[in-house]
Amino acid sequence: MTDRIQEFLRDRRSKGLDTEPCLVVDLDVVRDNYQTFAKALPDSRVFYAVKANPAPEVLSLLASLGSCFDTATVAEIQMALAAGATADRISFGNTIKKERDIARAYELGIRLFAVDCTAEVEKVSRAAPGAKVFCRILYDCAGAEWPLSRKFGCDPEMAVDVLDHAKRLGLEPVGISFHVGSQQRKVKAWDRALAMASQVFRDCAERGIGLTMVNMGGGFPTKYLKDVPPVVQYGRSIFRALRKHFGNQIPETIIEPGRGMVGNAGVIEAEVVLISKKSDDDENRWVYLDIGKFGGLAETMDESIRYQIRTRHDGAEMAPCVLAGPTCDSADVMYEKVPYPLPVTLEIGDKVLIEGTGAYTSTYSSVAFNGIPPLKTYHI
Amino acid sequence: MTDRIQEFLRDRRSKGLDTEPCLVVDLDVVRDNYQTFAKALPDSRVFYAVKANPAPEVLSLLASLGSCFDTATVAEIQMALAAGATADRISFGNTIKKERDIARAYELGIRLFAVDCTAEVEKVSRAAPGAKVFCRILYDCAGAEWPLSRKFGCDPEMAVDVLDHAKRLGLEPVGISFHVGSQQRKVKAWDRALAMASQVFRDCAERGIGLTMVNMGGGFPTKYLKDVPPVVQYGRSIFRALRKHFGNQIPETIIEPGRGMVGNAGVIEAEVVLISKKSDDDENRWVYLDIGKFGGLAETMDESIRYQIRTRHDGAEMAPCVLAGPTCDSADVMYEKVPYPLPVTLEIGDKVLIEGTGAYTSTYSSVAFNGIPPLKTYHI
Repeated sequence: MTDRIQEFLRDRRSKGLDTEPCLVVDLDVVRDNYQTFAKALPDSRVFYAVKANPAPEVLSLLASLGSCFDTATVAEIQMALAAGATADRISFGNTIKKERDIARAYELGIRLFAVDCTAEVEKVSRAAPGAKVFCRILYDCAGAEWPLSRKFGCDPEMAVDVLDHAKRLGLEPVGISFHVGSQQRKVKAWDRALAMASQVFRDCAERGIGLTMVNMGGGFPTKYLKDVPPVVQYGRSIFRALRKHFGNQIPETIIEPGRGMVGNAGVIEAEVVLISKKSDDDENRWVYLDIGKFGGLAETMDESIRYQIRTRHDGAEMAPCVLAGPTCDSADVMYEKVPYPLPVTLEIGDKVLIEGTGAYTSTYSSVAFNGIPPLKTYHI
Repeated sequence: MTDRIQEFLRDRRSKGLDTEPCLVVDLDVVRDNYQTFAKALPDSRVFYAVKANPAPEVLSLLASLGSCFDTATVAEIQMALAAGATADRISFGNTIKKERDIARAYELGIRLFAVDCTAEVEKVSRAAPGAKVFCRILYDCAGAEWPLSRKFGCDPEMAVDVLDHAKRLGLEPVGISFHVGSQQRKVKAWDRALAMASQVFRDCAERGIGLTMVNMGGGFPTKYLKDVPPVVQYGRSIFRALRKHFGNQIPETIIEPGRGMVGNAGVIEAEVVLISKKSDDDENRWVYLDIGKFGGLAETMDESIRYQIRTRHDGAEMAPCVLAGPTCDSADVMYEKVPYPLPVTLEIGDKVLIEGTGAYTSTYSSVAFNGIPPLKTYHI
């Protein structure tokens, strides 16, 4: 929570514009985060993961600071271009692409594509002849608060075949990528992944394929309830792992922060709609906000991400609450298995501030479930 | 899948408009469903649950057939009014309402409100003086494929206090509501709930509160992979339970079908973007579609709803697949714990038809995650 956000919200309230929840993102924080990444990993190129928050203000700022962009669709490529990034600073990082979308990206100048199987290599070779490709490898994400499924990537042994296939089809196999899991709080998580990467480099070299690039993905955390290590510690740990596994032949590297770039820059202001109990002897109060899983807080799914919630009563006695959203959907409950402590003096109509909500909120909200409009956002 | 939908999709393909997934809803099926409910439960008033599919075409059709509407927000009330329903045919069925939204609904003529605690009763008494209220009671949803959380409702003992409080504040306590769980395949599920309801009626009568209405909620299923009993069986079972628990003093009843009204009227056409394996010895193929959890198939969450998927290869040999969506989000995997059998001859670029998708799809889709536009819908 920054002074600028506080002032903005005060002003919004004084004008009576605070009838619905909103997200406010402080661009100064995004700027600081970019500079922190650039300093902590001076030899890595930063490809901001557009999906985390694709607001034009965020993309323009990052483009002006020199960031590159990791995109998942033609629409995201167009957003990055519109923000001022040149095509050579954009990767099409989704391993799942329609062939016509690859062709469209190629027309727009994109020359760097992710793949994780031979079928995708074949599409890229037809629709983007001669392009550079990197192969995503599977990695288990121990230590991440939002571990990834096996959706993206292939076994490292298969990656060698995939890159070999790319070469034979006239593409330029440049390297590999991995992802250590989102909200990764262990700075050493990259070590084992880089060991795997270096093995793929050696196996490729034996087949005459000289790889030059490792895309080390995202995973850099933002602070929610628990403390997280500073980015500089990640930088040091990653550099040590690179030296350990690649010796003095350290490849070109890429990082793709998303949550780590914008998460702590945003605050959602919401309103308490109802406080109740289910029976006279209910141990927990139920607190219902005017935002929930369908309005932007989808990452509370399975209670994975636990946001810091501030109220005007902070410092008062706390008691456990079940926290739920405003929709008529019974699944729209955010914290129940582990109830959330909130002040006993909290009242219906109070505002609450949900911190660390700059990433994966605005575009995760539903079109209009229950007729509720998408989350209002302000980038200041 | 109806002939009309098939013809519409053929026409769309022939015009080359099939580059993105779409939902097609056959309004004739919705009309049949309404008439089936009206016939199977002739003494109940039908309040269509707007949230299931709030398309203007669906609401107008149902309004013209005489349906009433269960709404969750002022926006949904306005949609029902715009579709031609009068205010006396609309209930504000959400137990979680801002006081200013209750006031707005009251201005629009709404006189029937759901409550489940005294705090909500107080809001209604201030913002909608003299209105009718019904109290939702908690009910465990054994047998439902999409069981409900404890989010809505209170213990039956508390319901008596809540209705008593409403009476003392000048409101008109008319009855109670419950919900047996969505996609409820047991026709007897209503029996125990109606037993509870009749007990609340007796307890209220002792306090001088004469209840007259039971809102029996939704829960009526649509056919996915498994067969479901016909609506007429639900009607018979519910009537028997009403006779059993209320004798010859059967109250006025309301049902709120949503999924049961529109689910089987809709089909989503999607495209296979990629088919791959994660390693040479992977037992499952991974099949990636251009629609997933964020594009409208949110009810695959926890693999709860298993849709019927048709392809042009039906009849061919089948093999298990992991089914995933197109986004860069690792959570966007639909069926993995229980892989989904699909034809071994399925190819990249093939269309697939996802049946029973008329409910809880279009408005569940995200605003623009990964820049992917919301699901296109056609109501024919």
